[in-house]
Amino acid sequence: MPGPTGDADRRSGSPLGLHRVLEPAGVLPQAAWRLDPSPRIWPDEVLVRVERLNLDAASFRQLREASSGDPAAMKASVLEIVASRGKMHNPVTGSGGMLTGVVEEAGPDSPLGLKPGDAIATLVSLSLTPLVITDGLASWDGTSEQVPCEGHAILFGASIAAPLPADLPAALALAVLDVCGAPALTHRVVEAADRPVVAILGAAGKSGSLSAAAARKAGARRIIGVVPRQAEAAALRAARTAGGQARLAGQARLADEVVIADARDPVAVAAAVRRAGGPADVTVVCVDVPGCEGGAILCTAQGGTVIFFSMATSFTAAALGAEGAAADVTMLIGNGYVPGHAQLALDLIRTEPGVRGLFDARIDVPASGS
Amino acid sequence: MPGPTGDADRRSGSPLGLHRVLEPAGVLPQAAWRLDPSPRIWPDEVLVRVERLNLDAASFRQLREASSGDPAAMKASVLEIVASRGKMHNPVTGSGGMLTGVVEEAGPDSPLGLKPGDAIATLVSLSLTPLVITDGLASWDGTSEQVPCEGHAILFGASIAAPLPADLPAALALAVLDVCGAPALTHRVVEAADRPVVAILGAAGKSGSLSAAAARKAGARRIIGVVPRQAEAAALRAARTAGGQARLAGQARLADEVVIADARDPVAVAAAVRRAGGPADVTVVCVDVPGCEGGAILCTAQGGTVIFFSMATSFTAAALGAEGAAADVTMLIGNGYVPGHAQLALDLIRTEPGVRGLFDARIDVPASGS
Repeated sequence: MPGPTGDADRRSGSPLGLHRVLEPAGVLPQAAWRLDPSPRIWPDEVLVRVERLNLDAASFRQLREASSGDPAAMKASVLEIVASRGKMHNPVTGSGGMLTGVVEEAGPDSPLGLKPGDAIATLVSLSLTPLVITDGLASWDGTSEQVPCEGHAILFGASIAAPLPADLPAALALAVLDVCGAPALTHRVVEAADRPVVAILGAAGKSGSLSAAAARKAGARRIIGVVPRQAEAAALRAARTAGGQARLAGQARLADEVVIADARDPVAVAAAVRRAGGPADVTVVCVDVPGCEGGAILCTAQGGTVIFFSMATSFTAAALGAEGAAADVTMLIGNGYVPGHAQLALDLIRTEPGVRGLFDARIDVPASGS
Repeated sequence: MPGPTGDADRRSGSPLGLHRVLEPAGVLPQAAWRLDPSPRIWPDEVLVRVERLNLDAASFRQLREASSGDPAAMKASVLEIVASRGKMHNPVTGSGGMLTGVVEEAGPDSPLGLKPGDAIATLVSLSLTPLVITDGLASWDGTSEQVPCEGHAILFGASIAAPLPADLPAALALAVLDVCGAPALTHRVVEAADRPVVAILGAAGKSGSLSAAAARKAGARRIIGVVPRQAEAAALRAARTAGGQARLAGQARLADEVVIADARDPVAVAAAVRRAGGPADVTVVCVDVPGCEGGAILCTAQGGTVIFFSMATSFTAAALGAEGAAADVTMLIGNGYVPGHAQLALDLIRTEPGVRGLFDARIDVPASGS
């Protein structure tokens, strides 16, 4: 594998970024402990001036809990991770997030079609994106998933990036694009099923509300939203959908049924979904806390499918939990890449007022829109 | 939730064993830190006199590495885990294994159809099976996954158990049943695809060789076995299959192609599978080491499927690794339960001489057969 030094090596970067891996040798950048985040790009790379990080929900929650909510400690944790790993890859959760910024330099062999000055969002995880932070996160108050930030990042040849849409505030676009794999895969799975009953754990959140809208668009017969608290239930009940079967049937709710249950309590989740018209044929896990595998499995019908998008999902808890319950359910690891995912998610946020409202309530949209 | 004491509580055990969970309250037994392994059974439970544990491959490897291969330290680790958790649930890997034993007592409401004296294997993970070890593992030499053991275990109403077949040595049956979910799910996925190219990482191992035979039976067009060492390659090349397409085509190898690559090296795995006729439409991960997600993803065609059976799989490494490589692959968590899994696996070991040979070479079959 080419090392990060020497001009001879620079003629042949790997589209997957293998040439940026410092340790252990030979693994993919996501699996690496440490990357080389040098701003000197290989011919097929792109250098991005970073404006904003979006920490993924599981990572943000873990960092907040580990620092007891102290913003200074949060800030120190993020800086320490990025300095030691060359990427914002939370070592506890294994997850990252994504970022927005402006293209500073595009290598001559980059296939991404970007040019200096383009405002973009990355659609690959921060857990594999070389990153340097130069402002000590001075503008971040340590209380939100979105982190204003100065520094630079690197895109590889195979990294996916999306131009930031001009018609949406940058903070909103970033939040939507961060979770755009969830509605895309939900749409695919629901469309392939026969008008399934769909349960969404964490349906009032970002990936959850987008997935609900995608399930509706893909022909779900009934959508059951599971949320942890009364306030979220009220917000979700108030959320309207603009299209799909619901509209034809004279209903206009984003979720047909909204139930309150702690997603970590399997018996409660299963009972709540059953009372709301379950079990589900397709269950979508969009929560950010560990321990939700059992509830997702128990609320799903035999022969049904569970899609795990939560980065707090335990592989063994899912595999052995289903076995232990004799649950013949297909369990999918929520792949963050589905062709067309960014466009689908942006279209949903533009056309679904209920989803937009739930996002707006969760995001501090800055006045500048950047 | 009923507590473990008081006769009033004993009238209504939960088929999932929730009444045995000591901490944290309300979770499934698999997710629990500690279970109540008391031999006094609830009306729908079964008490089993344990004869042999089969530690799962990922757990065994982790325990061996943590104890630097010292058998006494291995023994102490297993005893400590079971004493503190009330189950053999490796806290590092999150996995367990299964066991064989003889039914001692069946509660009047047990739906399992077992009676005292029946020799059985459990088909639910040790990570959720209440267990007490009473002999200090005096008969285990600390060097094999199979652990001769005296003690007792509990089966819940929904726990699945299989009678030990009379025509196979108990150690062999235990090894087969331990991994029987893998061939069953592989069969289902391969059958649903259109004569796919199948790559199996760890194809000379137990779950790998059974999965290869199942893929053949389900109509795979080509089976590529990936193994780490020359000795395993030779053993796999020598393994013959009894039926399926291979026989019709005049070929009789269990794997059509056998390639050597370290499953933790994604570039090497992808290149080896490509040279052997890949990329794969279906990739089956049957290795027991961490860090194989990248290779499995890269050796799979766009639109293909990866089935992860390894208990060393990282959920985030799979989800974010696929995203980072822009790989549109369906990734399945290998559910250990598929209806008919035990029968399928036992039929394969009986009818496929190549699989049987690979198993026999890996198992110390005791003379007594028990």
